[in-house]
Amino acid sequence: MRLSEYFLPTLKEFPKDAEIISHQLMLRTGMIRQASSGIYVWLPFGYAVLKKIEQIVREEQVRAGAIELLMPTIQSADLWRKSGRYDDYGAEMLRMKDRHDRDILYGPTNEEQITDISSHYFKSYKNLPKTLFHIQWKFRDEIRPRFGVMRCKEFLMKDSYSFDISEEEGRISYSRMFLSYLKTFQRMGLKAIPMEAESGPIGGNLSHEFIILANTGESKVYIDKRILDLEIADNVDYENDSKNIVEEWTQYYSVTDDMYDQETYEKKVGQENRLEMRGIEVGHVFFFGDKYTKPLKANVQDSEGKINPIQSGSYGIGVSRLVAAIIEASHDDKGIIWPKSVSPFDYVLLNLSPKDENLAKLSEMIYKKISQNNSLLYDDTTSSVGEKLNKADLIGIPQQIILGKNSIQNNTLELKERSSGKVQVIKIDEFLKQFNNG
Amino acid sequence: MRLSEYFLPTLKEFPKDAEIISHQLMLRTGMIRQASSGIYVWLPFGYAVLKKIEQIVREEQVRAGAIELLMPTIQSADLWRKSGRYDDYGAEMLRMKDRHDRDILYGPTNEEQITDISSHYFKSYKNLPKTLFHIQWKFRDEIRPRFGVMRCKEFLMKDSYSFDISEEEGRISYSRMFLSYLKTFQRMGLKAIPMEAESGPIGGNLSHEFIILANTGESKVYIDKRILDLEIADNVDYENDSKNIVEEWTQYYSVTDDMYDQETYEKKVGQENRLEMRGIEVGHVFFFGDKYTKPLKANVQDSEGKINPIQSGSYGIGVSRLVAAIIEASHDDKGIIWPKSVSPFDYVLLNLSPKDENLAKLSEMIYKKISQNNSLLYDDTTSSVGEKLNKADLIGIPQQIILGKNSIQNNTLELKERSSGKVQVIKIDEFLKQFNNG
Repeated sequence: MRLSEYFLPTLKEFPKDAEIISHQLMLRTGMIRQASSGIYVWLPFGYAVLKKIEQIVREEQVRAGAIELLMPTIQSADLWRKSGRYDDYGAEMLRMKDRHDRDILYGPTNEEQITDISSHYFKSYKNLPKTLFHIQWKFRDEIRPRFGVMRCKEFLMKDSYSFDISEEEGRISYSRMFLSYLKTFQRMGLKAIPMEAESGPIGGNLSHEFIILANTGESKVYIDKRILDLEIADNVDYENDSKNIVEEWTQYYSVTDDMYDQETYEKKVGQENRLEMRGIEVGHVFFFGDKYTKPLKANVQDSEGKINPIQSGSYGIGVSRLVAAIIEASHDDKGIIWPKSVSPFDYVLLNLSPKDENLAKLSEMIYKKISQNNSLLYDDTTSSVGEKLNKADLIGIPQQIILGKNSIQNNTLELKERSSGKVQVIKIDEFLKQFNNG
Repeated sequence: MRLSEYFLPTLKEFPKDAEIISHQLMLRTGMIRQASSGIYVWLPFGYAVLKKIEQIVREEQVRAGAIELLMPTIQSADLWRKSGRYDDYGAEMLRMKDRHDRDILYGPTNEEQITDISSHYFKSYKNLPKTLFHIQWKFRDEIRPRFGVMRCKEFLMKDSYSFDISEEEGRISYSRMFLSYLKTFQRMGLKAIPMEAESGPIGGNLSHEFIILANTGESKVYIDKRILDLEIADNVDYENDSKNIVEEWTQYYSVTDDMYDQETYEKKVGQENRLEMRGIEVGHVFFFGDKYTKPLKANVQDSEGKINPIQSGSYGIGVSRLVAAIIEASHDDKGIIWPKSVSPFDYVLLNLSPKDENLAKLSEMIYKKISQNNSLLYDDTTSSVGEKLNKADLIGIPQQIILGKNSIQNNTLELKERSSGKVQVIKIDEFLKQFNNG
């Protein structure tokens, strides 16, 4: 993509209304634009990141055995009356009437709708276990939206729902999702820590939040530092490893504010391992048994012919919030530093002397060669050297390929790694070899 | 994917309420489930097709030079008041109030919102031309939703918007989108015919509908048959070919009911070439100049310093409707016949004697081998032979690989092409060679 033809409205100034760095940087890099209070347009650069994150979430759901479908954004109020949550939900639920004066709403979550589906299709133990997920826009009418896409009204969420014949099986499904979450966040370069949490309006008594440590986070957390050293191997197996990995990751004290208890904390965690910080919630998993299946009559027959409510859990990831969370976790004073897995482009190519005809030709050649199998943003504009370099650092593409006055004479380019700032001078022919096809 | 683990709730009976074949087949194949009047859940098989179609639309937009972003579903009423359409739109617009009693709405389309964006970012001729697009759910509160996803309330639409400095340039952008539409529909195996059409509430005086001929279509159309023989070459070039292709495809009489005039029709089209039929609208393109940019003050400075309203057009494709339109165009009395490009799976593998241990092992081996680089649905259930064969025909995956009693003894499988029904008996080793990696 040529920058001259792209739509990347970066800002030089710091936006005054943005309170946290991710919101500032998303505005400065032209990733989003506020449409109205708490509602954002995702401009091309921001949307490209969002799609990358969405795809990682999707792939790891599928690997864990979940099946994708899509539920609509607009729901009938009837199901919510049956579960008892229509009145409970309060002013955050966006309610409206259709042209026939029926109560409808913009879904803030989908437990009722998916339970209705399960009650229709899953009648026998032979249909289970099943975990279904969708990635869909939700709406919560926040009274005070803030921090950009971190706490906004219209947001993209991945929500999965597990259906099992027994509590024991349900806990196995919970473990698979737990593992899937660890893998998902790790692929994005994030350290997301599972913490015991209150289940709140979703319900149930088994629940973990996945939290990224950040000073700007809204949650206060208390953890045993040793949990920070844990990692997930690339080759874990959902069938055999899920249970052990949950045990490994829940062995240390790790709780949100709601679940904090000073006495237990001090008893369980030696002084040298105590860490009290703030964090950003990026995922939340719940096992709530028959909380929804009982009132919505989602029953299933077991192998002995007995009929019982399906055992169920739900599992959310804040897909749009993750864009901001990654920036909070990965930036410096020059701008964003995208982890490779979520960067909209693999490379940015800077031609620092675009008026030099030979250099322009060389840049074109390099642009075309690399673009064949890689995504590359080519700054072909006539901006000044300083502007180009600053913009490249600001937008945070992992690798910068820099061509300047001496490139022709020396047959060299500079390859700069955005994260470390390290620059290598490389012979152009050498560098291009890796892009030869076949 | 093993069918035993998938979620494909097919029906044996014909659903009674569905009036047209695509709606019937989408219900029978477990692609959709009605959530409430005119609002559907996309079950896994249906959603997989929808995603395939969405991706083809996206790729052809990007090839034509359009840039993807995403506008939110919920819009403020303010912009619609400025354009004058808030009152015009009537009861089809889903209106509501937020918790602060402000008027908001679920977007039925996005001309106002994108024009607001263009007015903010495109100030100079240097920023233009630009064509932006998004693929987003829309809501229109149809008074009588019908025909399943063909005319429903919540639907997925691709809408593009072009921004140009002059009418002449605007018509070039229009031509590029026109070509992109021809390519998009051709890739899905559809013959979509551009027809002169009324521009209706969108406005402007240059407009074409893209229509698929089908007896169940809601539009009456009058065309010169010779347009059916036209095709788009694979290697067309947007820069150089767009204008000529528009001329080629608009040389014949081809209009919808609204624009029909008997005298002209009979004068322009020889009796032997006249075709009066019904059709399904799958795309609509408009060039409307300054209809939105003028009231919303989206102005741009030209190279001589003069300030004028941006010249603009909009271009829609009914992505969710296309799922039904493809079925209308491609089915037989046994079920759906998916064109390869939109099929959720490349192959379906049927083991007709799953209780035969050796055959089960062989099926597993074939399943694993093909799945490495292809998508395959493996019917590993214990259903009867007839049920398996009927279900495979019903769901319409292009290639069926059939293993039966004699497969082990003869080392053969049957490969059945769904569209022609043609069956080849092939040596298993021979067949599997194509799936060797490297």
